[in-house]
Amino acid sequence: MKIARFLDTHGTIHLGTPIDAGHARRLGGHLYEGLTETTDEIAVARWLAPIAPVNVYGIGLNYRAHAEETGAAIPANPVVFMKPTTAITDPGEPIILPNACEHGPEVDYEAELAVVIGRTARDVPVASALDYVLGYTCANDISARRWQKEGGAGQWIRGKSFDGFCPLGPVLVTADEIPDPQSLSVTCTLNGERVQTGHTSDMIFTIAELIAFLSRDTTLLPGTLIITGTPPGVGFARTPPLFLSAGDRVKVEIERIGALENPVVQAMKGTM
Amino acid sequence: MKIARFLDTHGTIHLGTPIDAGHARRLGGHLYEGLTETTDEIAVARWLAPIAPVNVYGIGLNYRAHAEETGAAIPANPVVFMKPTTAITDPGEPIILPNACEHGPEVDYEAELAVVIGRTARDVPVASALDYVLGYTCANDISARRWQKEGGAGQWIRGKSFDGFCPLGPVLVTADEIPDPQSLSVTCTLNGERVQTGHTSDMIFTIAELIAFLSRDTTLLPGTLIITGTPPGVGFARTPPLFLSAGDRVKVEIERIGALENPVVQAMKGTM
Repeated sequence: MKIARFLDTHGTIHLGTPIDAGHARRLGGHLYEGLTETTDEIAVARWLAPIAPVNVYGIGLNYRAHAEETGAAIPANPVVFMKPTTAITDPGEPIILPNACEHGPEVDYEAELAVVIGRTARDVPVASALDYVLGYTCANDISARRWQKEGGAGQWIRGKSFDGFCPLGPVLVTADEIPDPQSLSVTCTLNGERVQTGHTSDMIFTIAELIAFLSRDTTLLPGTLIITGTPPGVGFARTPPLFLSAGDRVKVEIERIGALENPVVQAMKGTM
Repeated sequence: MKIARFLDTHGTIHLGTPIDAGHARRLGGHLYEGLTETTDEIAVARWLAPIAPVNVYGIGLNYRAHAEETGAAIPANPVVFMKPTTAITDPGEPIILPNACEHGPEVDYEAELAVVIGRTARDVPVASALDYVLGYTCANDISARRWQKEGGAGQWIRGKSFDGFCPLGPVLVTADEIPDPQSLSVTCTLNGERVQTGHTSDMIFTIAELIAFLSRDTTLLPGTLIITGTPPGVGFARTPPLFLSAGDRVKVEIERIGALENPVVQAMKGTM
């Protein structure tokens, strides 16, 4: 099932299965406790990110070819970072180039497969880890490279946590439709030109291994979002580097899920 | 006002002002929208962490003397990391030594002043940053040092995110009672022996500067928790190193706020 989250014309949030660009069939019940299909067709005023996560874990350097392009060693364990829930952005909404990026272009795209945990997971073995997945969607792990690398004594968070730095969507595809998450193509397209091309079979740590690792001695609640690393082709690793500019359009596309597209705008000046 | 959060004997969560070890006077209303005093005395079945945060930001190396003891340079910007909300632990509840710390002792204490944001902050200037603070409490930024330093290619999150790794409390003291958060003593006591002694006047970045920095191009929602760094005396920087063991009791104490005490236990084996 493809699950979208949206506002109707009265500003009420619903879950539903998309019918066309402006309509969805409402789903009743609760995302983590069980949804029920209805026959209600609703006019969509705005599509939202398919979930409002409780915690967002990111994984760095999880595609062999991306680790190689950054010059980093293949990590022995998953490289874990986090993003605040406030970074989540709806499909079609702008990625805002922050005022804090005042020393020149540095904002980069990262197309990623995103995993949504559906039931509480703790100390989950690899063999059953996928049983805890509610579904999959697309994420763009927007990263301000100067802040990421130099602004936090090596800690990446400040460069990955600005508002708008985690576009998510367009829909959540339930796990039954993607029995093997290691068989998906992942691409990023910038202004119509393909800039990232990857495949989840190139992941260093599989989705099941990531869930087992993150859940060790640690509770993953329903609504936990895991963005699982990016394939090669990111802007900072190119010669010359390629960073996002106002007016750009970035599209993350994942096989069996769909396309997440966002325009890029410059933040308004003088707010501080 | 001192605000506690607790369960009554029916398992219902309340906010209230503590009367004694087992009773509180209930507060009506909502923590972020305005509380009202009542005359209801309630028997407390269990004290909880005073808030359930929406996002948890941590600041590394924010006391001069602690930066020096770790051998790190004085950072040019606040060093930002995050903890998942699932790490929050109630006063008196155990700090659990994870099974993942299987290569010997590595779990360390860090006494910290914790700041709770009370109203939405974005692009807040330093001069008015404290207006966004609802109150202050004590935190213990428990850290598994091997995982922090070596387990994540330099990213600290995995070593700071295990369940039980963020004891918080015992009460939230509203900002009107602490007009100058840079005038507080912060200590940590392990099994009755003082191990950390510091003062918030030694912070490299003040609370107001941290809020201004974190809110730049970034929304801090009500319920955002900021743990603001630890003074010198942490276990890994000692000779010989001093790590937590099952049976220990750790107490974080901050002037005008109170004492947050937690026992240390070993995780049960064989859950994975």
